[in-house]
Amino acid sequence: MNDTASDSRAALDALRARFGARIETGAAVRDHHGGGDSWHPAAPPDAVFYAETTADVSEALAICHAHDLPVVAFGHGSSIEGQTQALRGGLSIDMTRMDQILRIGAEDMDATVQAGVTRQALNEHLRDTGLFLPIDVGTHATMGGLASTRASGTMTVRHGTMRDRILGLTVVLADGEVIRTGGRARKSSAGYDLTGLFVGAEGTLGIITELTLRLTGIPDAARAGMFSFDSIAAATATVVEALQCGLCLNRIELLDALQMQAINSYNGTDHPETATLMIDLAGAEAQVDGDLDILHDLARDHGARARLCATPEDYAALWALRHSALYAARSLRPGCLSLSTDVCVPVSELPGIIAAIQAEIDAEGVIAPLHGHVGDGNFHLVMLFDPEAPGEQDKVRRLNARLVQMALDHGGTATGEHGVGLGKKIFMQAQHGPALDLMKRIKRAVDPKDILNPGKIFDL
Amino acid sequence: MNDTASDSRAALDALRARFGARIETGAAVRDHHGGGDSWHPAAPPDAVFYAETTADVSEALAICHAHDLPVVAFGHGSSIEGQTQALRGGLSIDMTRMDQILRIGAEDMDATVQAGVTRQALNEHLRDTGLFLPIDVGTHATMGGLASTRASGTMTVRHGTMRDRILGLTVVLADGEVIRTGGRARKSSAGYDLTGLFVGAEGTLGIITELTLRLTGIPDAARAGMFSFDSIAAATATVVEALQCGLCLNRIELLDALQMQAINSYNGTDHPETATLMIDLAGAEAQVDGDLDILHDLARDHGARARLCATPEDYAALWALRHSALYAARSLRPGCLSLSTDVCVPVSELPGIIAAIQAEIDAEGVIAPLHGHVGDGNFHLVMLFDPEAPGEQDKVRRLNARLVQMALDHGGTATGEHGVGLGKKIFMQAQHGPALDLMKRIKRAVDPKDILNPGKIFDL
Repeated sequence: MNDTASDSRAALDALRARFGARIETGAAVRDHHGGGDSWHPAAPPDAVFYAETTADVSEALAICHAHDLPVVAFGHGSSIEGQTQALRGGLSIDMTRMDQILRIGAEDMDATVQAGVTRQALNEHLRDTGLFLPIDVGTHATMGGLASTRASGTMTVRHGTMRDRILGLTVVLADGEVIRTGGRARKSSAGYDLTGLFVGAEGTLGIITELTLRLTGIPDAARAGMFSFDSIAAATATVVEALQCGLCLNRIELLDALQMQAINSYNGTDHPETATLMIDLAGAEAQVDGDLDILHDLARDHGARARLCATPEDYAALWALRHSALYAARSLRPGCLSLSTDVCVPVSELPGIIAAIQAEIDAEGVIAPLHGHVGDGNFHLVMLFDPEAPGEQDKVRRLNARLVQMALDHGGTATGEHGVGLGKKIFMQAQHGPALDLMKRIKRAVDPKDILNPGKIFDL
Repeated sequence: MNDTASDSRAALDALRARFGARIETGAAVRDHHGGGDSWHPAAPPDAVFYAETTADVSEALAICHAHDLPVVAFGHGSSIEGQTQALRGGLSIDMTRMDQILRIGAEDMDATVQAGVTRQALNEHLRDTGLFLPIDVGTHATMGGLASTRASGTMTVRHGTMRDRILGLTVVLADGEVIRTGGRARKSSAGYDLTGLFVGAEGTLGIITELTLRLTGIPDAARAGMFSFDSIAAATATVVEALQCGLCLNRIELLDALQMQAINSYNGTDHPETATLMIDLAGAEAQVDGDLDILHDLARDHGARARLCATPEDYAALWALRHSALYAARSLRPGCLSLSTDVCVPVSELPGIIAAIQAEIDAEGVIAPLHGHVGDGNFHLVMLFDPEAPGEQDKVRRLNARLVQMALDHGGTATGEHGVGLGKKIFMQAQHGPALDLMKRIKRAVDPKDILNPGKIFDL
C-alpha cells in the first residue's frame, strides 16, 4: 500500500468505477503480478488492471496520477531483476491483452504492434512474409517488456538490441498524456531521441503501449555448429578473430564445461563437456559456406573439435539446447534460487575476467554454470544458492559484486541485457558516477510524483 | 549580447582572466564562428574560446553558467541549419584544437577520440589497422558536430548513423560538471540511454568533448557502379527490391537528371543525365560478385543501363562525383543560396513523394536538383534561390514546408540527418505533437538557465 491508504482506496474505487471487472484484487492475481522470474522477494500490487488499449492505459494513469498511486506495467513476468515488483503497492497494469499486430509494412520491412505481443507471436504472424524480428531471447516475453529492459539475446552480434530494432513508440506518461516518439523513417535528426530514452527505462518514465519495429529478411541460408575447446581462452580467441574477419555471424554463444554438463543432463544429450561455442552463420548460400570454412579453420587453429548441423532438425535442436541453458543450469540444484550475472565487457577482456571470477567462484564452492553472448562480450553465470542456507545468498551477491567491479574496471557494464530492476541498483553509482544524478533529474522532470515503477533502477 | 550586458562583460573578463589569449574577440574570428554553411543569417558570438581539454570546457562553462552567458560549441562550421549561430551572443567554444585520438582498441574494434577530430583524420590514422569509421558525409566535419546532429551519410544503409557508432561520451553539462555516459561494452541495460540523449541534441543539453566509437573492418572487396534509369520510380523500385534481397549494399544513392547535369557540368564528365543510382557493394569477394549479378538483373528488369567501375581509380572517382553533388548543385546558379531539404520517409513512399514535390517545384519554376540516401528513404532537394530577388526565399521555404508535411503524413521526419537547428524549428510541433513538450521538460531539467545553444531545435 502507498503512504496514504485512504488515497489508495479512493484511487481503486475510481478505477473500479471506470473499468469494472477488469480491475482485479484477488490474492492469486496480485501474487502473480508481484514478481517476475527472479530471486527477489515478491511485492504484490494492490490491484491488477487488464488494459486493452492505449486509451485504457491513459485513463488508468490519469486516475492513479490524481491519487498518487504507483503503477507498474506487467507483461509475461519474465524479467529477472525484480522489475515488476510493486514495491509500494499500487496498480499493476497487465499488458497481455494488448496483443494486436496493428500493421505489417512488408515493402518497408517494418511492423507496428501493441506492447503485449510476444516476439514468438509476431514471428509466427510474419512467417509468410519472409521477414522476422531478430530478437532471440530465451523466454516468452512481450515487446513492451523487451523494450523496457533493452533486451537483446543471441542475435545481437548481427542485428543489435531492442534499441536498434525500434523506430517509434506510443507511450503513456505519468499523468495519462499519450505521446508518439519516432516514426517509420529509418533515421531522424529531429530533436532528442525520446524513443531511446524510453527503451531501457524499465517503465519508470512512461508505459510503452505500441511499438514500430524494424524487421529483417529471413536469410537464404544458415549453417550452425558446436565447437568444443580445451579452454575458454581458446574459445574467446576464436571469437575475437571471427569478429575481426567480418564473418556473417548470426549467433556466437559460449558455454562452459559445467553448463554443457547441465545441458546434457537436462536434455539427455551427450555433447562434449568442455568450453563450447555454438555458432550460427547466416546470409547468402555462397557466403555462408565460405565463412564456415574460414571459421572452421580459425577454430581448429585453437584446438577445437567441430560438430556441424547437417539438417534443419539438427539446427533447430542446437538452438533449443542453447535456450535450455538457464533451466538446465537451475536443475543442477533443484529447489535452489539462481542469481544470473549479466556483465558485458569489451570482448578482448572476456578471458581474463572469466578466469578471475571463476577462480573466486571455485574458491567459494558455488555452483555457477556459464553461458553467454560472447560476440557482444556479455555472459551469464547462473549462481545457484539455497535461500534457506545461512550465508549462501550473501556469498553469491558478493561474487556478483566482485564481477561487476571487474567489468567496470575494464570499461564494461553491470548489465548487458537484463536491466537494473532491484538487483543492480547498488552498482549504478559506481558505474555512472555523476551521470546517475542526471538520470534522476530526468526522472523527476518526466514523473515528478514518482508514481511510475518507483524504486527501480535507482532511488530518488 | 545577452540580456544583461554587464553580466556578459563580467563573464568575458573572468574568461579572459582564466584563459588569456585563447579568448578572442576580433571581428573576423567572431564572424567566422557566427554561422555554418547555411542560408541562415549569421549571428556572431561575443567571444570565441579555443578549448584544448575537457577541463577547459568545464571551467569555461562554469564561468558562463555563473554569469548566464550563452554557449555554443563550434567544430568545422559545416552544419547547414544554423546550429552554430550564436543567437543570443555569448561564447563560442571552438573545439578544433581538441583533435587528439586518445586510444585505438584494435582487438575490440573501438576508438576514443576528442570531439574536434574529423572523420577524415580518424580514418587516416586507422589506415594500417584494417579498421575504419563508416560515417561517410560529404563535408569535413568534427566528431562532436557529427554526433550532435546525429549525422549519417552514404553508408547508413549498411552501418547506421552516428547514434549507432557511439558507445560512450564525455559530456560537460551546463554548470561545468563532467559526466561520462556509456562505456566500451557493445550493449548495456544499465539505466537511461544518456548517450543517445546527447547524440542529436545539437549542443542544447551539454557539450560533447570525447567519444568512444565503434569501428568496423575494411571489407575484403567492394564493387561499385552507376545505373541509369528512365525514371525515379524505376530507380526506387530497384532499391526496394535490393533491400528486400538483403544484398551486401554499402551505399545506394539516388541522383535525378538535373543533379546529373549539374555533376557533369561541375566535374567535366559525360554521364547519362537521367535518374541514376550510384551503388556500392562490399563484403567478401564471392558475396560481392554474386550480389552484383543479382543487382544487375534487378536494375535491368527496371530498364537500367549500367556502368560498373573497373578499377580502384574508377571507384574513387565515382564516390568523389557523388560527394561533389551539393557543390555541383549550387553551381547551377552562382551567387545564389541553397536550402537543402532533408526529409526521410519509408522507402516505399519515396516515388510518390518525390513526384508530388517535383511537380510543385516545376510549377514554381525553382531549380532544385535531387540527391540522397535512398536506401534510408532520405533525400535532399537543393533548392536554389537568390536572396536579393523578392519572393524567392519565401517560395523555397513554402516548398520545403509542403515537402515536410507530405513526409509527416507518411510516417517520415522533417530531417533525416541535417538536424533541426533554426531551419526546421517550425516543423517540430507538427512532427512531435505533445512529445515536443517532453523534450522541453528535459531541456529545462538539464539546462535550467537555458545557456546551452539557446533557441535551437525549439524555443522554450
